[in-house]
Amino acid sequence: MFFASDNASGVAPEVMAELAAEASHALPYGGDAVTAEVTDRIREVFEAPRAEVALVTSGTAANALALATLSPPWGTIFCREDAHVEADECNATEFFSGGAKLVTLPGSGGKTSPEALARALARVPESDPHASRPAALSLTNLTEAGTLYRPEEIAALTETARRRGLRCHLDGARFANALAASGCTAAEMSWRAGIDVLSLGGTKNGLMGVEAVVIFDPSLAEELRIRRKRGGHLLSKHRYLAAQMRAYLADGLWLRLAGQANGMAARLAAGLETLPDVRLVHPVEGNMIFVDLPDPLAHRARTAGAVFYEMERGNGRVTLRLVCSWSTTGRDVEAFLATLA
Amino acid sequence: MFFASDNASGVAPEVMAELAAEASHALPYGGDAVTAEVTDRIREVFEAPRAEVALVTSGTAANALALATLSPPWGTIFCREDAHVEADECNATEFFSGGAKLVTLPGSGGKTSPEALARALARVPESDPHASRPAALSLTNLTEAGTLYRPEEIAALTETARRRGLRCHLDGARFANALAASGCTAAEMSWRAGIDVLSLGGTKNGLMGVEAVVIFDPSLAEELRIRRKRGGHLLSKHRYLAAQMRAYLADGLWLRLAGQANGMAARLAAGLETLPDVRLVHPVEGNMIFVDLPDPLAHRARTAGAVFYEMERGNGRVTLRLVCSWSTTGRDVEAFLATLA
Amino acid sequence: MFFASDNASGVAPEVMAELAAEASHALPYGGDAVTAEVTDRIREVFEAPRAEVALVTSGTAANALALATLSPPWGTIFCREDAHVEADECNATEFFSGGAKLVTLPGSGGKTSPEALARALARVPESDPHASRPAALSLTNLTEAGTLYRPEEIAALTETARRRGLRCHLDGARFANALAASGCTAAEMSWRAGIDVLSLGGTKNGLMGVEAVVIFDPSLAEELRIRRKRGGHLLSKHRYLAAQMRAYLADGLWLRLAGQANGMAARLAAGLETLPDVRLVHPVEGNMIFVDLPDPLAHRARTAGAVFYEMERGNGRVTLRLVCSWSTTGRDVEAFLATLA
Amino acid sequence: MFFASDNASGVAPEVMAELAAEASHALPYGGDAVTAEVTDRIREVFEAPRAEVALVTSGTAANALALATLSPPWGTIFCREDAHVEADECNATEFFSGGAKLVTLPGSGGKTSPEALARALARVPESDPHASRPAALSLTNLTEAGTLYRPEEIAALTETARRRGLRCHLDGARFANALAASGCTAAEMSWRAGIDVLSLGGTKNGLMGVEAVVIFDPSLAEELRIRRKRGGHLLSKHRYLAAQMRAYLADGLWLRLAGQANGMAARLAAGLETLPDVRLVHPVEGNMIFVDLPDPLAHRARTAGAVFYEMERGNGRVTLRLVCSWSTTGRDVEAFLATLA
Repeated sequence: MFFASDNASGVAPEVMAELAAEASHALPYGGDAVTAEVTDRIREVFEAPRAEVALVTSGTAANALALATLSPPWGTIFCREDAHVEADECNATEFFSGGAKLVTLPGSGGKTSPEALARALARVPESDPHASRPAALSLTNLTEAGTLYRPEEIAALTETARRRGLRCHLDGARFANALAASGCTAAEMSWRAGIDVLSLGGTKNGLMGVEAVVIFDPSLAEELRIRRKRGGHLLSKHRYLAAQMRAYLADGLWLRLAGQANGMAARLAAGLETLPDVRLVHPVEGNMIFVDLPDPLAHRARTAGAVFYEMERGNGRVTLRLVCSWSTTGRDVEAFLATLA
Repeated sequence: MFFASDNASGVAPEVMAELAAEASHALPYGGDAVTAEVTDRIREVFEAPRAEVALVTSGTAANALALATLSPPWGTIFCREDAHVEADECNATEFFSGGAKLVTLPGSGGKTSPEALARALARVPESDPHASRPAALSLTNLTEAGTLYRPEEIAALTETARRRGLRCHLDGARFANALAASGCTAAEMSWRAGIDVLSLGGTKNGLMGVEAVVIFDPSLAEELRIRRKRGGHLLSKHRYLAAQMRAYLADGLWLRLAGQANGMAARLAAGLETLPDVRLVHPVEGNMIFVDLPDPLAHRARTAGAVFYEMERGNGRVTLRLVCSWSTTGRDVEAFLATLA
Repeated sequence: MFFASDNASGVAPEVMAELAAEASHALPYGGDAVTAEVTDRIREVFEAPRAEVALVTSGTAANALALATLSPPWGTIFCREDAHVEADECNATEFFSGGAKLVTLPGSGGKTSPEALARALARVPESDPHASRPAALSLTNLTEAGTLYRPEEIAALTETARRRGLRCHLDGARFANALAASGCTAAEMSWRAGIDVLSLGGTKNGLMGVEAVVIFDPSLAEELRIRRKRGGHLLSKHRYLAAQMRAYLADGLWLRLAGQANGMAARLAAGLETLPDVRLVHPVEGNMIFVDLPDPLAHRARTAGAVFYEMERGNGRVTLRLVCSWSTTGRDVEAFLATLA
Repeated sequence: MFFASDNASGVAPEVMAELAAEASHALPYGGDAVTAEVTDRIREVFEAPRAEVALVTSGTAANALALATLSPPWGTIFCREDAHVEADECNATEFFSGGAKLVTLPGSGGKTSPEALARALARVPESDPHASRPAALSLTNLTEAGTLYRPEEIAALTETARRRGLRCHLDGARFANALAASGCTAAEMSWRAGIDVLSLGGTKNGLMGVEAVVIFDPSLAEELRIRRKRGGHLLSKHRYLAAQMRAYLADGLWLRLAGQANGMAARLAAGLETLPDVRLVHPVEGNMIFVDLPDPLAHRARTAGAVFYEMERGNGRVTLRLVCSWSTTGRDVEAFLATLA
């Protein structure tokens, strides 16, 4: 009954097998054959033959490197208040960018809107030497509320951004879950919807620790790679990152793992909805559930061994975040529902 | 009829006289006698015998150096959305601090509240390794809306801040105007109300280009001075800054100049209030007026040679910002009112 | 015949086995049991019960985080011109420290001396507000020339540094090779010789990608951990780093692997010395050899499939760097020597 | 007998008169007429009609802003060990550039050579992802040893730099002294010799605190201006900087003041050379003298009230730095020589 986070799961067996099978010697720092192979594979999966790829070992690194490449130190990056880059990365984006400013956009259900972005942009005069320069938009899909941006929602946001010259980033820590939930292609959910740089997550979905920065505008790639090296994120035994990502994208493993996580969340959500006095806070569209329930219920679950985060508490009720992963089983779900029933 | 900004005014004659009278040689970088003298004078004026002082030539420098000393690179600084440090300094605070995050607080009339601060602080868990660390509060007085924080309002905010370990900064670009408006002492409006570091403005109020960072906790002084040097803000002919500040604080010149600016604004506000279809947006407590009026009126004033900023426009109306300075005269005010009448 | 770098080797089987055996779920970000265990183990190995540990995935990250914690942004860090932090990390230390300055120290055979350090320090007046502040000394052992600092050499350097208030860092990318070569204990080669923070390498010696920052002064640990998070170097599935390091330090594996690498280098060096017109540039004390030989010889080796770096070239001769690793075999060595003979 | 530094002198009367005559109101932040006028004047003086200008109040600001614009954060800037940017600006260039590395070049008499630069560049492989990227060359004229680079020497250095794609900066804190000493035009000593950005000093030569960054490649101007604002170096009452610079460049005042300083230094040097056991360390080509003499002589001068810096001391001798300024008089020089005689 481990619902704290998908990043607490282990490594998928298919991935571990690839790691164990790696050759005994190879050129370091990405000069190896596996890295070349995985770059080709990502281009194929994203139908983006000119895309460039940089593998790193954390989502914070992927996001901060991407945004530092999209915004000058005197730029503004627009995002949601609950975006990982704003709330959970300890000023990494400010650090990597050399001092860019993050400005938050209102919205609901984990999403923001073109109108909210337009209003925020309108507050910054076009040629004010004193103002921070609007530079980038950062979205997250699946959102931090577990909801899903459809490609057309992303496109509407990136179009508004682009009218003012902003570049667009997508934090795809749960990109595979978003694809599995929507049935969209990787291209539809990224560059076709106006995304310039994607943080393609792997760690939360069965890898040991690999995220791919996918750069759809290849003119940005060299700077991003220099920043990766300077940030200590160019690993010498790089092929072990590449091997994980190769396994991930082979035979649709990534979508299978994400589908399992999403499916378990759907089952859990369906069960929760049948319980009296229990309320889903957001639509459950991927592998993450926010549920509002009476305090004693949460207490009972915790006592029974369930692990999860509490988001808010008050008036005898509590909001829990429950996250399913590729390794969550039907038994986990049933056991959790049974403790609440 | 120059109401664009108090920083468009000139240098007060008393100040220019001091500059012209400076000695022909002196030790550079603040090793001169005038600098020592002005430090003593500031301690006396603020009833703060252990205060330390660093003179710089811009408010942006004063604010950014102060906040960089109060917040680590991984810290959060809380301020208003319209604070100069957030809206008008092109990421200077992010730059000087090495990447601190600015988080804005809601409020009205240019002010925020202890409740708003408390709510913002409550969103950051006490020991979350992923979150930016709450580090400092930055207030502005006179506010950017031309309103006045009373010392007890400042104290209520700094107490809330201090409960969570934050240090407190006051952007006093118009500190003299705030004193003149409130009748408070300099001490009451700063350290007695919980302020750790003050940006004491001079430039908007008759100096050529001097702001004093007044550091009430002397343990912060050395780091701030190193940061000043590293930021290119330690002037070699430092005594010319000190001479300006000495003249400013001698015989109450600063309060006299601010009183003149405030008085002209009061007169202008009183005149505006008598006009039909003209509305003051905020209480006028210092030298700055926000007035909402019909478009054609603003147009008429501009045509007549008046200079001012437009803040917002819509529905046939426009909001103007009118700022009086030490050199605004009754004739300027009367002429402006006459064009509108 | 792969002698390009020890970081081109693979993962030792004992380490891969530990990875494969990891539990299916665990608390992320180092809150797991393996991380606690490996911290205890490092304290034991270093006879330093209060030491703190931060695991990261690259040597650049380990070095830059360590030095950023030891030097303020306005500090000077002294190191060798060929130090990894100066020559091979693309300004990572300048980046992580927020702008510290690296000043290089002369010396020979990959080493510097207390006299060279003292001379460099003497050039910076004690209380000069304009000068960068001497802050840290960074040494490397094994050195970049493959030579070995004995503990008493390190102690003489750190004593000179400490007299001026500097903190001391050791880049131990090849620390295990240094221990294996010297027969010293880990404590003798680190904190007993005056080292405050050690970058303890694992990647070049059989791990997949783990370096441990070992912090002997625990007052530095919290800041270093915040910097790690902010730098994107706190991995969520942290236990996979810990599991590698646990295997590394269990039953002396790290010293066994390093001993194998050193032994192969010794055998290779001995063979090279018997060849006419071939000259070892530095004493071979660990797993790295610099050898000066006629161009055609190098060409012959390369043609035969040997892989290595050329360091310098001129007058018909070339200097090669040959690095042995834990997976270098006697057959590799013999084959290489045979091509030259 | 004040020979400590030219920055300890006062403001030239012609300059003070311009300040006092400034208009009572003007648009802030450089939107005034004087600023436009002084930009035109600089273009004329430098025969560079497309040059852009940014005025600041310190040499450290001018240098750091210039170099930050010329080098990315992952770049290397080559300079002399005694360059102001390396030795006397407390890591300002590292700070403003976001972490660029300064690498020092050997040489003698305050100068470096194309050969030294070429050797330093040769140590950095062309396409090494791990190395800091060679980005800029920073020269100083007059040099820190008081010697003079002739335009053809500068051109030889900038040509070597340009072959590797470096941009070139000249720290001209004493540019007027260099012009007065050489009889060259401003163009010959700057862009015609390959300089991209010049820090044109005024403060050491009769201004209160103004340096002009002269940008010969106008494509760099916008970024430099944004950096100036972000660094707190865009002054609101900007016209008081412009007024100083206008006076400086009017009727050859700058060259007259520099000529006076150089002349006094020449007279002082001539006098020193006649004294037994007194030795000039470098050729005296501008307004700065380095003289090696017996300890007791220096002591006698100090006792008689002379003010100067000691650079080195040992074996009963001491090296003094004696700097003449625009306000040094023949009487000062004679009095000093008399105390030594």
